Amino acid sequence: MDSISELTVFFEKELGKIKYSKFPLSLYKPIDYIIGLGGKRIRPVLMLMSFQLFDDNFQKVINPAIAIELFHNFTLIHDDIMDNAPLRRGKLTVQNKWNTNTAILSGDTMALLSYQLISNIEKDVVHDVINVFTSAAVNVCEGQQLDLDFETQVDVSIADYIKMIEYKTSVLLAASLKIGAIVGKANLNDQFHLYEFGRNIGIAFQLKDDLLDVFGNQSSFGKQVGGDIVSNKKTYLYLKAIENADDQKRKELEEYYSSNTDDIDKVKNVKDIFVDLDIPLYTDRLINQYHNKAQEHLDKVSSEKKEPLILLSEKLLNRDI
Amino acid sequence: MDSISELTVFFEKELGKIKYSKFPLSLYKPIDYIIGLGGKRIRPVLMLMSFQLFDDNFQKVINPAIAIELFHNFTLIHDDIMDNAPLRRGKLTVQNKWNTNTAILSGDTMALLSYQLISNIEKDVVHDVINVFTSAAVNVCEGQQLDLDFETQVDVSIADYIKMIEYKTSVLLAASLKIGAIVGKANLNDQFHLYEFGRNIGIAFQLKDDLLDVFGNQSSFGKQVGGDIVSNKKTYLYLKAIENADDQKRKELEEYYSSNTDDIDKVKNVKDIFVDLDIPLYTDRLINQYHNKAQEHLDKVSSEKKEPLILLSEKLLNRDI
Repeated sequence: MDSISELTVFFEKELGKIKYSKFPLSLYKPIDYIIGLGGKRIRPVLMLMSFQLFDDNFQKVINPAIAIELFHNFTLIHDDIMDNAPLRRGKLTVQNKWNTNTAILSGDTMALLSYQLISNIEKDVVHDVINVFTSAAVNVCEGQQLDLDFETQVDVSIADYIKMIEYKTSVLLAASLKIGAIVGKANLNDQFHLYEFGRNIGIAFQLKDDLLDVFGNQSSFGKQVGGDIVSNKKTYLYLKAIENADDQKRKELEEYYSSNTDDIDKVKNVKDIFVDLDIPLYTDRLINQYHNKAQEHLDKVSSEKKEPLILLSEKLLNRDI
Repeated sequence: MDSISELTVFFEKELGKIKYSKFPLSLYKPIDYIIGLGGKRIRPVLMLMSFQLFDDNFQKVINPAIAIELFHNFTLIHDDIMDNAPLRRGKLTVQNKWNTNTAILSGDTMALLSYQLISNIEKDVVHDVINVFTSAAVNVCEGQQLDLDFETQVDVSIADYIKMIEYKTSVLLAASLKIGAIVGKANLNDQFHLYEFGRNIGIAFQLKDDLLDVFGNQSSFGKQVGGDIVSNKKTYLYLKAIENADDQKRKELEEYYSSNTDDIDKVKNVKDIFVDLDIPLYTDRLINQYHNKAQEHLDKVSSEKKEPLILLSEKLLNRDI
């Protein structure tokens, strides 16, 4: 039973074996670049962990694991175009280092390459794996579209928001776990509970991200703290605050969220309102609810090797970065 | 044995049964829109024709046939962004009717949906079909990248150009035929020759397109005649002209192709140079060479029902639109 860090090192080594720098270089260089920017590799590590519950020959699952990381990075390239983001992990985004056309096309290629890899597995599981992968992949696009729509939509509910982060973030984590289980020849029951574990952990993870975006430690968070407030993003924190605020505070919040200033006072004042309304507590409570649901599903998985998954989920949710 | 038009009608009917207008509508409306713009449906019809050589239960192959048309339309949406094209089949392009972000994301979704459909076939052929499809799909991206690169590259050879159109256009036609054969349980030999038939027909088809772009009949061609000249596109016609021109004519051509004018004289003068240098004849000769190669491969396919494929290839190459 390998630990999180052992699996991460193993995956990083396998990922590094593939070099995408082939002809035409103008298409493939950006792929090597974005992969080389690193990241936590959560999705492939989750897949390896899930697989490990049922089988220990990682060679069977390495191709889908690389595929899911490629796919994730494809979504980052295209999201960065849509968000007009200058930086990704502190480096230039692909569209800024090259140009938008290259970013579109290299992204497309990565999505397609992920299918080449994911179907390179034992033939009897290809059909199921492709189905799980594609459903999740389509959900990711749907989630991104909802995210874009919410920018201009006035009446976003908390349920809408949770649905959006479920699609945009958590289904791919869930699919990673389920694919690991399918390749490991787990039964349908275990596949289901691992998927649900991932889906709930994913929602909790994104809520934690939203919380850290406002209340994280600037030096360790890696992104600009308060970025969501500056860009008027209607996260759970904002939506819950609107729900709980009195008329005056609601008006104040709505005014802040319709201005396009990055005034430092805006971030500070919105944070103060959030604190006044106990939003960090509500958010933590919701995170714990999803964490508990995730845990219940994991409890139902028939394996004795679940410790690394439990540790990883705790690590993801108790982080302060 | 169904004819081209019967198969086209059958396909159009099956395609029409799928409505993509689901939640979120902002993502799926553009998909219905682009599919609704029509087109010749060459790729799916080729797939049905190839399948028909070996089996007559079209329900087995309808999902991959729809998949290939979806995929093709995904490439059109993304190409239109990259080319900054205002119109597609006489209507607004997706990025102009909606916006670039929607065009990126709806395109991505179509590519993913094509995998959902293409894997919805008999389990024992999924693996091979996905492989053939993905290789072609990646080639299409590589071809598009080469096409973009050639815009600024000075030393494009005729061989480079043929490689580009092979990747960008003909491999997907070839893959359509091969997938039809795989789903129809054809032997490897027949699969190979149908692929090669498609690859060669595809190159001939694109060369014909290039020829018609310059010498087609404006009223029937559907696009602006001379568009490739206006946009300085280094097609076979231009490259062959540069190869055959004396120093003075070469200089003249190069000057025309480095100016960004849509002056009507430019089109006329370049056409005159092409005619002086017998470029239409050279192009026709090359089209015939590829057509003959295609025919040789088709001859080697072990079926008595090849008549519709022969007719279709003649129709594609003898068209004046």
